[in-house]
Amino acid sequence: MNLIAVGTVAFDSIETPFAKQDRVIGGAATYITLAASHFIEQCGLISVVGDDFPQDMLNTMSARGIDQQGLQIKQGEKSFFWAGKYHYDLNSRDTLITDLNVLATFDPVVPSDYQAPDFLMLGNLAPGVQMRVLNQLAQRPKLVVMDTMNFWMDSAMDDLKAVIAKIDVLTINDEEARQLANEYSLVKAARKILEMGPKYLIIKKGEHGALLFDAHNIFFAPALPLEEVVDPTGAGDTFAGGFIGYLAQTHNISFENMKRAVIVGSAMASFTCEKFGPERLLNLTKEEINSRIEQFVALTDFEILVEE
Amino acid sequence: MNLIAVGTVAFDSIETPFAKQDRVIGGAATYITLAASHFIEQCGLISVVGDDFPQDMLNTMSARGIDQQGLQIKQGEKSFFWAGKYHYDLNSRDTLITDLNVLATFDPVVPSDYQAPDFLMLGNLAPGVQMRVLNQLAQRPKLVVMDTMNFWMDSAMDDLKAVIAKIDVLTINDEEARQLANEYSLVKAARKILEMGPKYLIIKKGEHGALLFDAHNIFFAPALPLEEVVDPTGAGDTFAGGFIGYLAQTHNISFENMKRAVIVGSAMASFTCEKFGPERLLNLTKEEINSRIEQFVALTDFEILVEE
Repeated sequence: MNLIAVGTVAFDSIETPFAKQDRVIGGAATYITLAASHFIEQCGLISVVGDDFPQDMLNTMSARGIDQQGLQIKQGEKSFFWAGKYHYDLNSRDTLITDLNVLATFDPVVPSDYQAPDFLMLGNLAPGVQMRVLNQLAQRPKLVVMDTMNFWMDSAMDDLKAVIAKIDVLTINDEEARQLANEYSLVKAARKILEMGPKYLIIKKGEHGALLFDAHNIFFAPALPLEEVVDPTGAGDTFAGGFIGYLAQTHNISFENMKRAVIVGSAMASFTCEKFGPERLLNLTKEEINSRIEQFVALTDFEILVEE
Repeated sequence: MNLIAVGTVAFDSIETPFAKQDRVIGGAATYITLAASHFIEQCGLISVVGDDFPQDMLNTMSARGIDQQGLQIKQGEKSFFWAGKYHYDLNSRDTLITDLNVLATFDPVVPSDYQAPDFLMLGNLAPGVQMRVLNQLAQRPKLVVMDTMNFWMDSAMDDLKAVIAKIDVLTINDEEARQLANEYSLVKAARKILEMGPKYLIIKKGEHGALLFDAHNIFFAPALPLEEVVDPTGAGDTFAGGFIGYLAQTHNISFENMKRAVIVGSAMASFTCEKFGPERLLNLTKEEINSRIEQFVALTDFEILVEE
């Protein structure tokens, strides 16, 4: 298995200023693996659900090459549940309910088939769980990408920093970057975060795009200006799945190729925003993805001759 | 005179979360003409000041080719004064004081030398004043760019819409675009605004960059991620001055060239943020400007091959 992803597979209840939907399929690993499945044949999933999670959805994921040897199904228990309400700008939200359920005791087991992936995606989860996955691998992947959130900065900063020290690419949003580095300037924050271990940092700014940093370069990818954002839930996870899926497909982890992967991730995330839940990721065609990527090219392309 | 700008020439007192400065040189037309002066030999200024405005600064502007036949100096009166305080994110601010002073009775007079400019910049001012400038011109310029703000939407919407109907390029920020169109989605807002008259719309998003729209295309330019933003006052006006200055220099108002002008405007605006007031615009070299433009190229440049 070339790509392994760990993260939640869950239910979300979502309220936006314009609409509301209860118990939509959600979870970081759901979005990550579905997004990645558009770029690679097979992907391993490490997660846990209760017996309330629909078998239909698992079958759909399986049909898309998402292997479930690493998915634990806990009989008599309930899947992770999150409820949230978006503010008017859809760029920020409040958590209303977090029912950990099966997640409270989740002890990830990496199956033998998953022992030597080239690409590992540590989706947003308790840093201790992310670390247990890393520690079980027989050999270190070529590239480890990690997503996290402010909740772990508030509650488990030491654990979090221990994982950050071991990964290659960290993806967080702008407020989280400021919090993690204790610096308001994103340029200064990025420099500090890169000193914590990762070689690359992606700062996600929602509708304002994403920044990719390494020690010497900055690349900026805009978000596609959308007619209508229905529900941004999962956009960051979809971004991560598109990003690592593209890297796994192209087997190239240069900065130049990461720039492309950031564009691909942004394109995939723009689809997720168009519907509640991961619905849009289930029926996307290659043509739709390519045409969306071409929209990004058109959106940012300019040529300027600087007089010497 | 190929380029004429109307707008305020004034004093600002500015407080940021990190520093404070009293009675800095400010005003929309100050920033616009100083930014434009890096691209063209001569530029006409239509504005008004009191006898408190430093002659030194007027001499400096004059030395940069900023013609002052259209500048009224009112003896015994005071220049326009604005005081504001920025929020922690430096992307939003509160107005503390607005002393109109000479602006209260400003009646712009377009000198005979300014009657046939190719490029006209209507800086942020009462829409009635902007209209009086437009109406005095012997012939319509090739391109009229207009900046405005929410204050005029709240207090003079009919006058504002009358000017908007007569111009070519409108520059406003994202909140103002939403307010003017009464649409949350910027894509929908842009469509409605373009129906009000302008052929082009630039939505300025501060540290999140700028969007250029015409009826068929969208172009996105990022803001340069800066180590440190000292004072964003005048960044929007500097953007406008760089934008129209570049268009006037290149004599090309195609969408392709407007994209370049948006990048140039963004580059110029990034300099203004580095110091209080227009200080940075006074001693900029061609090399600094070119190297900043090259940073924008590096920041956004990617190549992706979409498989067919």
